[in-house]
Amino acid sequence: MTHRVSSYVAGQWHTPTGENGLRVTDPTNGEVIALVNAEDVDVDAAVTTARTEGGPALRAMTFHERALLLKKLAKHLAAQADELVGGYTRSGVTVADARIDVDGGTQVLAAYARIGLKEFPADNVLVEDEAQPLIGNPNFVGQIIYTSRPGVALHINAFNFPMWGMLEKLATSFLAGMPSIIKPASQTSHLAEAVFRRIVESGILPEGTVQFIAGHPRGLLDGLGVGDHIAVTGSARTAATLRTHPAVAERGAVLNAEADSVNATILGTDAGRGTDEFALFAKSIVREMTSRSGQKCTAIRRVLVPSQHVDAVVEELTARLGKVVVGDPRTEGVHMGPLVSATQRADVAAAVRELSGGARIVVGGPDAPAAPEGAAEENGFFAPTLLVATDRRHPAVHGVEAFGPVATVIPFDSPQEAAELAALGEGSLVASVVSNDGGFIRDVVRSIAPWHGRVLVLNREIARGATPHGAVLPQLIHGGPGRAGGGEELGGKRGVLHLMQATSVASSANMNVALTDRWNPGADQLDPGVHPFRLYLEDLRLGDTLHTGRRTMTEEDVQHFAEFTGDTFYAHVNEEAAAASPIFEGRVAHGYFILAAAAGLFVDPEPGPVLANFGLENLRFVQPVYFGDEIKLRLTAKHKSMRAGTGWGEVTWNVEVTNQRDEIVATYDLLTINASKNA
Amino acid sequence: MTHRVSSYVAGQWHTPTGENGLRVTDPTNGEVIALVNAEDVDVDAAVTTARTEGGPALRAMTFHERALLLKKLAKHLAAQADELVGGYTRSGVTVADARIDVDGGTQVLAAYARIGLKEFPADNVLVEDEAQPLIGNPNFVGQIIYTSRPGVALHINAFNFPMWGMLEKLATSFLAGMPSIIKPASQTSHLAEAVFRRIVESGILPEGTVQFIAGHPRGLLDGLGVGDHIAVTGSARTAATLRTHPAVAERGAVLNAEADSVNATILGTDAGRGTDEFALFAKSIVREMTSRSGQKCTAIRRVLVPSQHVDAVVEELTARLGKVVVGDPRTEGVHMGPLVSATQRADVAAAVRELSGGARIVVGGPDAPAAPEGAAEENGFFAPTLLVATDRRHPAVHGVEAFGPVATVIPFDSPQEAAELAALGEGSLVASVVSNDGGFIRDVVRSIAPWHGRVLVLNREIARGATPHGAVLPQLIHGGPGRAGGGEELGGKRGVLHLMQATSVASSANMNVALTDRWNPGADQLDPGVHPFRLYLEDLRLGDTLHTGRRTMTEEDVQHFAEFTGDTFYAHVNEEAAAASPIFEGRVAHGYFILAAAAGLFVDPEPGPVLANFGLENLRFVQPVYFGDEIKLRLTAKHKSMRAGTGWGEVTWNVEVTNQRDEIVATYDLLTINASKNA
Repeated sequence: MTHRVSSYVAGQWHTPTGENGLRVTDPTNGEVIALVNAEDVDVDAAVTTARTEGGPALRAMTFHERALLLKKLAKHLAAQADELVGGYTRSGVTVADARIDVDGGTQVLAAYARIGLKEFPADNVLVEDEAQPLIGNPNFVGQIIYTSRPGVALHINAFNFPMWGMLEKLATSFLAGMPSIIKPASQTSHLAEAVFRRIVESGILPEGTVQFIAGHPRGLLDGLGVGDHIAVTGSARTAATLRTHPAVAERGAVLNAEADSVNATILGTDAGRGTDEFALFAKSIVREMTSRSGQKCTAIRRVLVPSQHVDAVVEELTARLGKVVVGDPRTEGVHMGPLVSATQRADVAAAVRELSGGARIVVGGPDAPAAPEGAAEENGFFAPTLLVATDRRHPAVHGVEAFGPVATVIPFDSPQEAAELAALGEGSLVASVVSNDGGFIRDVVRSIAPWHGRVLVLNREIARGATPHGAVLPQLIHGGPGRAGGGEELGGKRGVLHLMQATSVASSANMNVALTDRWNPGADQLDPGVHPFRLYLEDLRLGDTLHTGRRTMTEEDVQHFAEFTGDTFYAHVNEEAAAASPIFEGRVAHGYFILAAAAGLFVDPEPGPVLANFGLENLRFVQPVYFGDEIKLRLTAKHKSMRAGTGWGEVTWNVEVTNQRDEIVATYDLLTINASKNA
Repeated sequence: MTHRVSSYVAGQWHTPTGENGLRVTDPTNGEVIALVNAEDVDVDAAVTTARTEGGPALRAMTFHERALLLKKLAKHLAAQADELVGGYTRSGVTVADARIDVDGGTQVLAAYARIGLKEFPADNVLVEDEAQPLIGNPNFVGQIIYTSRPGVALHINAFNFPMWGMLEKLATSFLAGMPSIIKPASQTSHLAEAVFRRIVESGILPEGTVQFIAGHPRGLLDGLGVGDHIAVTGSARTAATLRTHPAVAERGAVLNAEADSVNATILGTDAGRGTDEFALFAKSIVREMTSRSGQKCTAIRRVLVPSQHVDAVVEELTARLGKVVVGDPRTEGVHMGPLVSATQRADVAAAVRELSGGARIVVGGPDAPAAPEGAAEENGFFAPTLLVATDRRHPAVHGVEAFGPVATVIPFDSPQEAAELAALGEGSLVASVVSNDGGFIRDVVRSIAPWHGRVLVLNREIARGATPHGAVLPQLIHGGPGRAGGGEELGGKRGVLHLMQATSVASSANMNVALTDRWNPGADQLDPGVHPFRLYLEDLRLGDTLHTGRRTMTEEDVQHFAEFTGDTFYAHVNEEAAAASPIFEGRVAHGYFILAAAAGLFVDPEPGPVLANFGLENLRFVQPVYFGDEIKLRLTAKHKSMRAGTGWGEVTWNVEVTNQRDEIVATYDLLTINASKNA
């Protein structure tokens, strides 16, 4: 019986009835494996559920709470990885490619769980950087905060990575506090559904925070507008249609598109046959052409080669591609499966014919036999195809994305020409540069960077330790300008911030503290009544301040410090040399002596809630301390954060060391570990 | 004779001939003051000049070089401020409003000059943050770089601030390395032209980096696409038209829109009559209604007031508005001039009639007499108009932007309702909250932030020291979601980065150094042959490393350090208490002793190129140092930068302190001032 792909809306699974809809076939043998139809799905209910249940539930959680759920979900799905991988074979996907999708999916969840815990606060608002005095007034300060957009994130995914693509968008939206409505590509919606069923069954994510609509429902964008976000991975045509949709063009929904991309790899002039880089280059190209049968938005389409190395490269690629076994992924020894469908096969064949306008086929091609014996007539098999440009600036060569195992070799005569040719792609997701020449890399990468969201540099030093050209890492930007859609996903913390609203808030220094939970130097200093180091995390107030007594920095002490520590820099021990310095007027106290003496002034010796000083930030020695100067300091609680599930937290203290004329001599932020009352 | 507004394209001024075009009139007396017509302007020549001359010239400069030109231009224009201000009276603009435009313009240039010098490098590529190991491999690292987009920045400006609006966009584009083509609003293009003439005459900005097209030229967007940027300040209709234009929807030009905005100000429940906040609130509203006759995208349109304070607020505003003298700005004692044109007057009147569907007029209105005696029949005079909502959720009240001296009072009954009402604006540029209650401010600001690009909080503490609601500061974000256009300008450094391409670059640790001019811990350590502190800035190579000898941290030394510095924290001096700590196993050396001893190990005592250690960053004490442990360290040149025009620069050194088991005990970045050879 044909599997019917269900949708999950408003806490209910909806299975299509009737016989309408798209039939998904096994591209190997033509068997119908799934029926997809969303015509009865209630899109309005999905949007309403997201707005009224999912959104409020998510926004009420802190980033850490959201991250912990993602972590749990990553573990839950990782435990079922083998089972999930097993589901791909009827879709013509090799085990290796299925594993990339499944492992990539759980890894991107886990990565964003880590990013959420490490780079975001235990709050639902992210406060960026420090409050800055505006118009020179320390009592009127400005600061940027990021808040969750009060809407829905609609995810329109591509067919090639049904699990990774879905979880990549879900992870960032969830962490950003936006409920997701996921529309998988119909061709592999049954694979996405299998993952989504496990998400629902796990009960880990609160109801309404994730929903799933397989097929093409009516009016998907009609309820979207300001506060909503649409993330699409698909064709340039789809992206353009969405850009001009009233939801985006008039009602203010934010669109992030990842579209076509004719990605390039560039060989260094230094990297001829026999070099490690030459071998890396050839291996990388064959991998990107054949992995997922070349159906990757990040695959290599253009192979830019110094003219003098073209013959060697073509020979090497021809030999390597000749060894690629194409066939049914269920057959032992098969390296590459079919394209996702017979339709896709026809599209790729048409694209190769377009490319032929400016290039000649040297391996494979649309007419080369590719299907194994016994394949259905309507199959997806396509032979690995290499072309060599006959016109190196031909528009098709740089503009046509053949979404299959297809690449074109294009010669260049100078690093500048290589960069120009790469730019003819008019914006790509990724380029790689393979060379061991730092000068070549610097020139080419800096020139091509504005046309790309990601650049990978490969050389012998990372022949083994690098990720491949096509791999999308959570830490790196995924997206590109122009033809690539102009969007940006991932990139670590950035990928979450893109989904949130940045707002500048200007206020009095004290109101900034009330709003951001961070003290700033324009705000009130509070008197805690006791030494602030005696206060548990819960009792310490932002602004609690200690003013210390004074210490005179004597010549004798500085001389002793120099001898004792070994820091006999002339500015501390040689009056004549110090006075000759362009910076000092005579001998000065060591900066490290100022720090140590400051600690001597503020320390509270007995055991108490402050367990250790684990670091310093932003230390600046603002002016010299001469012999006889008296230093004193102000130490103020600036920020505190509890570590979830522990009996302790971290406190940042702002320290200002001044001299007897109340001039600042040093400022820094002191980091301590503080106990909770409940430790 | 009527002034003909000229355009400046490809290094030439073009003055329109013939009698076609828009006639700009003095809205006071109806006199024709300028003729605007761009039909003969060669847009292609402008785009080509920007692409082939301006872009390459700008991209060849470093950020610092660009910033220095902006600084020079700011000075040049500031010196002519009075003359420029004098030009506004025939446009119905008061001297006070003209001064805001002129001073705002020179200040935004100066602010971006400072930002360029302080927050950007002496390079044309910005490297963000630190190289991060990817997939846990220290030799495979990733980093984000920002490069200049290789295109043109088209600026479509609004009529209300012809100078500030032009220079605000110009400053960020110029600093980002993008040549600008400026299209001023026709109504005040003669004022923009006056400024632009001074820019051209100054010869400060390289040819092709700025061009000026007054009027509506044919095919303005036809040559734009990937790599180009369009920044528009205008109506929501204009923004929607641009969003769906093929240059944006299909060819990949990036659009940044600042459109309609029905901005709110919110009074705190605490801020009844008699409080400082009540007075601040009333003053702020009247200022925003009348400044530039309310023709500001950031002006207050919605006045949200706790129900119990509505009568008092209306009474106060009625009294204050009654004192506003409307008239010809050339007349002594006039506070507010006319709207920019009779057409604008008709538009505002129509908007007020729409508002009347959900509010009643209590002051002014479209039929109130406003024109002074002797005004032309076709004039722009409009009386300050206050409405009070009869239906607090009426769509017109929250959706109609009457672009004149018009505001509507809307009552609310709880902070939550205030936030809900503010959100009905569906995205605004700015909101202000006026209250002295930190809790109210925290709740309301966090709730409304996702609907705004900027929020201003006013209370008695900054009754004098704050900028007004409508003021757009270079440090703060200008832009907002939804109806406000979804764009973002300014915000300090952000405003430049939005115009650049962010690219993640992954490479070997060494190739990262070649690309970014920053050493990272996975990269090679180089042997300089001498102590690296003996090398002048020019001779020091990134990666030059010193490995020091060891120092044993003895009980005696730690005890002495405690006594000498006064830092007698129990973890250093009390074995029993230290062992009882959850962190330490017994007494440990002071962190500051580790720092000081490290300095003793790496110091090079004699005078040399290293003049001073002026700070530390990122200090972390990673694990304790117990008595008998031996510490040693590696110190490596990580980054160097020359201060332009001085004989010195700054060097960042990465320091890693390890113990006798080669475990890291502390890491930090040391900052020194180093002399150049030419000092």
